[in-house]
Amino acid sequence: MKNPLHADASLASPTAFPKNPVDFRSDNCGRAAPEMIEALAAANSGTALGYGADALTARMQVRFSELFETPVRVFAVATGTAANAVALAASATPFGAVYCSAQAHVNTSEVNATSFFGGGTKLVAVAGPHGKVGPDALAAELAVAGKGLSHRSQPAAVNLVQATDLGAVYSIDETTAVGAVAREHGLKVHMDGARFANAVAALGCTPAQATWKSGVDILSFGVTKNGGLLGDAIVVFTPELAPDIGLHLRRAGLVWSKMRFASAQILAYVENDLWLRLARRANAAAAAIAAGMEGIDGVTLRAPVQANELFVEMAPARVDGLEEEGILFQRRSAGLARFVCRWDTGEDEVMRLIAAVRRGSVDRKEQAGANQ
Amino acid sequence: MKNPLHADASLASPTAFPKNPVDFRSDNCGRAAPEMIEALAAANSGTALGYGADALTARMQVRFSELFETPVRVFAVATGTAANAVALAASATPFGAVYCSAQAHVNTSEVNATSFFGGGTKLVAVAGPHGKVGPDALAAELAVAGKGLSHRSQPAAVNLVQATDLGAVYSIDETTAVGAVAREHGLKVHMDGARFANAVAALGCTPAQATWKSGVDILSFGVTKNGGLLGDAIVVFTPELAPDIGLHLRRAGLVWSKMRFASAQILAYVENDLWLRLARRANAAAAAIAAGMEGIDGVTLRAPVQANELFVEMAPARVDGLEEEGILFQRRSAGLARFVCRWDTGEDEVMRLIAAVRRGSVDRKEQAGANQ
Amino acid sequence: MKNPLHADASLASPTAFPKNPVDFRSDNCGRAAPEMIEALAAANSGTALGYGADALTARMQVRFSELFETPVRVFAVATGTAANAVALAASATPFGAVYCSAQAHVNTSEVNATSFFGGGTKLVAVAGPHGKVGPDALAAELAVAGKGLSHRSQPAAVNLVQATDLGAVYSIDETTAVGAVAREHGLKVHMDGARFANAVAALGCTPAQATWKSGVDILSFGVTKNGGLLGDAIVVFTPELAPDIGLHLRRAGLVWSKMRFASAQILAYVENDLWLRLARRANAAAAAIAAGMEGIDGVTLRAPVQANELFVEMAPARVDGLEEEGILFQRRSAGLARFVCRWDTGEDEVMRLIAAVRRGSVDRKEQAGANQ
Amino acid sequence: MKNPLHADASLASPTAFPKNPVDFRSDNCGRAAPEMIEALAAANSGTALGYGADALTARMQVRFSELFETPVRVFAVATGTAANAVALAASATPFGAVYCSAQAHVNTSEVNATSFFGGGTKLVAVAGPHGKVGPDALAAELAVAGKGLSHRSQPAAVNLVQATDLGAVYSIDETTAVGAVAREHGLKVHMDGARFANAVAALGCTPAQATWKSGVDILSFGVTKNGGLLGDAIVVFTPELAPDIGLHLRRAGLVWSKMRFASAQILAYVENDLWLRLARRANAAAAAIAAGMEGIDGVTLRAPVQANELFVEMAPARVDGLEEEGILFQRRSAGLARFVCRWDTGEDEVMRLIAAVRRGSVDRKEQAGANQ
Repeated sequence: MKNPLHADASLASPTAFPKNPVDFRSDNCGRAAPEMIEALAAANSGTALGYGADALTARMQVRFSELFETPVRVFAVATGTAANAVALAASATPFGAVYCSAQAHVNTSEVNATSFFGGGTKLVAVAGPHGKVGPDALAAELAVAGKGLSHRSQPAAVNLVQATDLGAVYSIDETTAVGAVAREHGLKVHMDGARFANAVAALGCTPAQATWKSGVDILSFGVTKNGGLLGDAIVVFTPELAPDIGLHLRRAGLVWSKMRFASAQILAYVENDLWLRLARRANAAAAAIAAGMEGIDGVTLRAPVQANELFVEMAPARVDGLEEEGILFQRRSAGLARFVCRWDTGEDEVMRLIAAVRRGSVDRKEQAGANQ
Repeated sequence: MKNPLHADASLASPTAFPKNPVDFRSDNCGRAAPEMIEALAAANSGTALGYGADALTARMQVRFSELFETPVRVFAVATGTAANAVALAASATPFGAVYCSAQAHVNTSEVNATSFFGGGTKLVAVAGPHGKVGPDALAAELAVAGKGLSHRSQPAAVNLVQATDLGAVYSIDETTAVGAVAREHGLKVHMDGARFANAVAALGCTPAQATWKSGVDILSFGVTKNGGLLGDAIVVFTPELAPDIGLHLRRAGLVWSKMRFASAQILAYVENDLWLRLARRANAAAAAIAAGMEGIDGVTLRAPVQANELFVEMAPARVDGLEEEGILFQRRSAGLARFVCRWDTGEDEVMRLIAAVRRGSVDRKEQAGANQ
Repeated sequence: MKNPLHADASLASPTAFPKNPVDFRSDNCGRAAPEMIEALAAANSGTALGYGADALTARMQVRFSELFETPVRVFAVATGTAANAVALAASATPFGAVYCSAQAHVNTSEVNATSFFGGGTKLVAVAGPHGKVGPDALAAELAVAGKGLSHRSQPAAVNLVQATDLGAVYSIDETTAVGAVAREHGLKVHMDGARFANAVAALGCTPAQATWKSGVDILSFGVTKNGGLLGDAIVVFTPELAPDIGLHLRRAGLVWSKMRFASAQILAYVENDLWLRLARRANAAAAAIAAGMEGIDGVTLRAPVQANELFVEMAPARVDGLEEEGILFQRRSAGLARFVCRWDTGEDEVMRLIAAVRRGSVDRKEQAGANQ
Repeated sequence: MKNPLHADASLASPTAFPKNPVDFRSDNCGRAAPEMIEALAAANSGTALGYGADALTARMQVRFSELFETPVRVFAVATGTAANAVALAASATPFGAVYCSAQAHVNTSEVNATSFFGGGTKLVAVAGPHGKVGPDALAAELAVAGKGLSHRSQPAAVNLVQATDLGAVYSIDETTAVGAVAREHGLKVHMDGARFANAVAALGCTPAQATWKSGVDILSFGVTKNGGLLGDAIVVFTPELAPDIGLHLRRAGLVWSKMRFASAQILAYVENDLWLRLARRANAAAAAIAAGMEGIDGVTLRAPVQANELFVEMAPARVDGLEEEGILFQRRSAGLARFVCRWDTGEDEVMRLIAAVRRGSVDRKEQAGANQ
């Protein structure tokens, strides 16, 4: 058997990376905003008490309460998965059920983090358009959930991904509608805002409107994908969810002892609307691609492009072609490609992607002609 | 009842912090090494695949295999608690027992992280000097542990803290002796090296000698306390422990998507012996304080000062005096003070601490004289 | 707020129960087979070592190896949920996914037992007819499951309910087909045989043919629903699944210290084909009802009646009528009734149920006539 | 490697068991009280709704509220380990610490059940005489426990074993003293009453005095060891602990669907003081042995014999001698033997044990003489 300690040996000499790549693999492939690295470097002065008892972390509490126009608690955490799992563990019990879209990140891409942190908490998929939880589908699930019956998972929370895992954005009305169903049944509302900035930028609303004013109890506030480096955050709106979060994080090894370096990043992220400016750039790139693909024969968007992701259906041969050209993206299936725009996606990348797709179109037409 | 969202309001306006503090609270109160921040900033170029599939992370694998003179797997993680808990989860089962010192960090300061990650894994305290696990005490525990009996926790691993939580350092012989008992009983050996650099610097041995050559299977490789900022690491020597670690980390939200920024730090940390140079400074400061306290009447070291921590027993009134003077440190009990030296502890801090303790000594003598 | 210690006060004076009820609520509402109680009483002699180290439990191992025509390990447990959860925990890891029918008992009726025992293990619903897992649907799920990717739940096992939760029975070929897909992808096959006796009786095959010869690795061997009282069993066919089961059971408080009384019951259950004789009676009652309902206008069976359960679709008013008449059954929804036959279901109960449904039919026709 | 499915093959032909054994191995080696088996058999009539919604279970609620002179909730469970683990899970959080004697059954003999059910809950050993938790030692532990600090296990509950695992009995005053410390620090008090009947019989008090009147919040009510067969119970005195217990039990597969057969046993157990009559017999046997051993040279009781267990220190050769004679008991170490009396321990067994120990004494004297 292979020695697992040699498992990554191939990685040590990665295949030469193209000089000017056209890279739509993920927003986590992008750079950090220089402002955030500068803030981190600026925090490196003097001594500071550990585990969040420092002045920058205290300032972050104040700053986020201003940002959200209500008293909140904010916890810097290492990753969005950690934010989601702890937020849901605070919202549910080990016997609980969390309702989410089948496409939700917690359901598809976080191993079993929700049940790990929750001590058994179950995910239940609910239908809805474009990666959303539909309020009617949620109400229908809850009607037969058997709350109070000891052999049934107890309805506890609903998870909304904003922007969704298919690149769509919940309108304020949509969030409010799900929130109303949730409240009626005693569920907490968790918003997975890994791309919250992209959604708020798209909605043109305030962070408050997008969250607690629409019924959200607790938010995974994404930073990494939108110009951050090593941290995201949990923002708590509903007081009863706050008390155990520090313990959840501490026992999971998620509380940095040199917290000031995390808080510094997050403070810089929300200063002077940096977060929204970064998100607008990514959204604009995605919109440009969507516009550029409009009218190309045989190219269909699977969901409306409202944030920074595009899910594009094409003939498999066309997707092959993009790969052969060296365009970097995630192939979800033979005929489905995901393109994600970063805050630092270049205009040339956008142009080259559109051109490549168009070329595929020409090729296909030529091929079709040749076949006649 | 108080709204928990207001819980930290007081932190927002922290009491004015002294300009030139004498700060021995913890090594996690210190700054990051500028080299590490520079490395992090230098990593902020181009795009890179997420979750550790980048070139810097690949390079880290190679670099650590060189550093430890054997193929290893290294995983960057957010904190030492995460490193410990995952390393032990990889070494034990939910039915398992991990033997450790009563003073071990895993036993005193990580909430219930070991059992959380391990699915129930239990800690069993074993006697030994100065925060160490004694090989004879371990053998005695194992003799009555009832391995194979289904109603007993199954002996699985031993946890050695290097340097210990009382500031002592396992000699190579001591590590080897515990390792031999462990192997004889089928236990894995985990070394909690939150202060591994301080221990290696003190021992003057190679990292290999301090670990796998002495029987260590898996290491929590501390970075944060010794000039790091937001990351530590797990180093795996024994191949069979490696395969599930990626899953353990992923489901705990401990895998950064922009991993390159963590790997860059850790690479800088071990480059040009930075880690050992930093540790030597902290160790030297501690040694200077120990020397300065020698012969002061009524001042006793609880354990030999071999790394960067001092545990000092004094009359409670003397400890009061230090607090009143504004010296910053951790008071473990009425008459026990912990002083931790950082890599950036100033010579003036060392001098001022020694002087303050001495003064306490004078005061006490004067007081004693006055009382006559 | 109500004192929860008074919560069940109403139960203390249950509403008068009808003398000769027509009771199709569940097979767990039935009596125990007198042979089993006699065996339990006969075990009450002399002393016996605890926790399964007694002669009856040893004999049970031998007897089940004979019954299944291969060496097996058998563990008596308190309930079918315990059997399922431990069998799956032995077959999966905390990072694992278990594939099952959406209707599977583990998915609908065991709170979060699978993830509790498995330390996070996830259930994934797979399509199939009548509560079955379809081999093609399973293969399709596995094709996109992302085995080996650290952010995905790792495919671990498949759960087949035999007879299914809709009263159907997997043919040998169907079990074999699912088993083949499972083996191809490295999955273990768990059969939830809460109604295994009913299925074997229906198939007319040997227990071996229904299980390990068709690819089953581990079986929840149901006893309670088919004439048992306080115990079911786990039967292990695949050696690698056996070693940890004793520990799983012990830490869950599922190992009786006076095990002989459980083993005695289970031995009696399989002696002289008692288990099959009991199951045949329940199956026959169900078949009689199915035959009696045939041709009644507006009455449809949702799934073939192959074991002892019937799922019957009728107009809601008709279901109301059955309730008003005092027929006892489980109403799954407005127009869906479940009728379960026990080993001790009386012929009169069968007759009275058919007559009541028929009457509903007449009423409806009369009503229809009256409305003309 | 050996096939684990053959693991128990040797058990199938157990070594011939002596006809009239002298058996002090455990009280779980004894028979069930015939009254309890009769009650179980009598419950086997008609149909009854499952999972505890039957008339016998309702009656058990009423009967136990009478027995304890206060409204209580009672849950029949399979084993004492299940009772302990669920009672503690209801009393603590995953971040919690449960204080117990080092000798406590939960600490020595239940694998990691407490942390499994509690989601990580930690056990902390507290000093005290004869397997008890001492109130002062508990107070001292709590004084340094760091409640509210997020890196410390949060003090949650204290576990008292009554009678203790060394055969001693808490006096009412002792229970009350621990209860007072617990309440002062916000801890719940759990009594592990695996031998509760023996303790109550020894104390001559009411069940109420031994429990809630002395500060006990929740009780594991032992049945199996004192004449039961397949069930114990949890009795809840403090309302806030009740609501989740049904879910804890259900997800652990600990709720029998044919609950009436468990409730019938437990009702019979407390009817006409059966439980106390059985316990008095076991206690009397133990007292007779203690009296018989008094004054035997070289034979020392490790703890006062107040219930039905004796822990006897003797020269190792003497313990060898008892084993050679075929006396059955548990050897805790070379020179420590445990003898447990059952409700059905025969007078001849008592006599033969005393005689054997005496003979050892003679032998030793003779040997000592011979050595002169």
